[in-house]
Amino acid sequence: MRIENRLADLGLELPAPIQLPPGVTLPFPWVRLWNGRAFVSGHSPLHPDGSMAGPFGKVGADVTEAQAYQAARLTALAMLSSLRVALGDLDRITAWLRVFGMVNVAPGFTATPGVVNGFSDLILELWGPDAGTHARSAVGLAELPFRIPVEIEAEVAYE
Amino acid sequence: MRIENRLADLGLELPAPIQLPPGVTLPFPWVRLWNGRAFVSGHSPLHPDGSMAGPFGKVGADVTEAQAYQAARLTALAMLSSLRVALGDLDRITAWLRVFGMVNVAPGFTATPGVVNGFSDLILELWGPDAGTHARSAVGLAELPFRIPVEIEAEVAYE
Amino acid sequence: MRIENRLADLGLELPAPIQLPPGVTLPFPWVRLWNGRAFVSGHSPLHPDGSMAGPFGKVGADVTEAQAYQAARLTALAMLSSLRVALGDLDRITAWLRVFGMVNVAPGFTATPGVVNGFSDLILELWGPDAGTHARSAVGLAELPFRIPVEIEAEVAYE
Repeated sequence: MRIENRLADLGLELPAPIQLPPGVTLPFPWVRLWNGRAFVSGHSPLHPDGSMAGPFGKVGADVTEAQAYQAARLTALAMLSSLRVALGDLDRITAWLRVFGMVNVAPGFTATPGVVNGFSDLILELWGPDAGTHARSAVGLAELPFRIPVEIEAEVAYE
Repeated sequence: MRIENRLADLGLELPAPIQLPPGVTLPFPWVRLWNGRAFVSGHSPLHPDGSMAGPFGKVGADVTEAQAYQAARLTALAMLSSLRVALGDLDRITAWLRVFGMVNVAPGFTATPGVVNGFSDLILELWGPDAGTHARSAVGLAELPFRIPVEIEAEVAYE
Repeated sequence: MRIENRLADLGLELPAPIQLPPGVTLPFPWVRLWNGRAFVSGHSPLHPDGSMAGPFGKVGADVTEAQAYQAARLTALAMLSSLRVALGDLDRITAWLRVFGMVNVAPGFTATPGVVNGFSDLILELWGPDAGTHARSAVGLAELPFRIPVEIEAEVAYE
């Protein structure tokens, strides 16, 4: 329970598993485990009850950069909630490998790395610089589902 | 020939290998095999003869969501055609791992998951819920090559 | 030093390691090594001293397709510089696996594969058709960080 203890030390709680909006079902899992590798579907910010959290819309217009940083941090918590369900214990994650950060940008908003730092900073706080370090891209998408401000997918190693 | 039989049961045929438009050559393969992992390049809908199939353009403007769902289903068939060439037999695929679905969106079109379901639903019909399940993102791109409505890349395990 | 010799034969030099603009720090490495796999963060063109190189802006408006092809070629050199730092010797790369090419497109610019060929062509020149071949997607993004014209991430195998 090392990672869960660090979350508690930071005053953070993982949200409940993702609750999609009424009428929406998705034919894929949030985490695909295979042979020591977890492929993680695109995640976005959640409320504590697992429902989708705003602010919704375009970063740089509807959503400020600071709000989007916070949304990326909430996205990390959402992903950890899914990984806890899939693995039983977050301590089984031995290495973060790849993070692909997608920001729902208004035209001209290019500060996408600063936004996705909200995700990376928390992962590094929790796993430290060896296990937590990861290759990353952070880019501006034309549209994201449900007008979420940020969507992040990842790949991690587990034992 | 288990997967090919299921395709036949569904009344589906795989298209011929991809025929690029005249004058276009690409310096990469459609599938990169390495050590039990197949990395699959971005695919798009094909006609039965392997030529690129429309409807072309922006989903939400030139292309309806229902047409785009069907385009994503045709994209799955195109990818299976490439995988059959690369592996000899689709039954060698033991696990779908990651699917990255890119939709050529008109401004404001956010129903990208529903579009990429056209791909995921068919993979799950063919491989079932264990081998067929996959991590996924489904997002809106600003532009796609040749104005294709959908482009999907994937990673699978094979034996 | 086989790859370095080929670079020299082509009259090419790798740039110095990436120097971010003043005041910018990023919490992730350019290459994540893990168990024989190198996950490479999104790279972009560099000047010989490692500072970010233009032309900046939208391909199809501010940047021509020919300039963008050249930018993708410089992106390959930037990535090789990072891989040399991470691995010590580029000859340790035994297989290119996946290349994801992102082009900063003006509306209507769809010739993204031709742009990313600037990257793929050089990798194939250096590693040859067996080790150098790679699965690839080449798509149009709404915005990229720092208004770079091209960003490319990759995955390679090393020994």
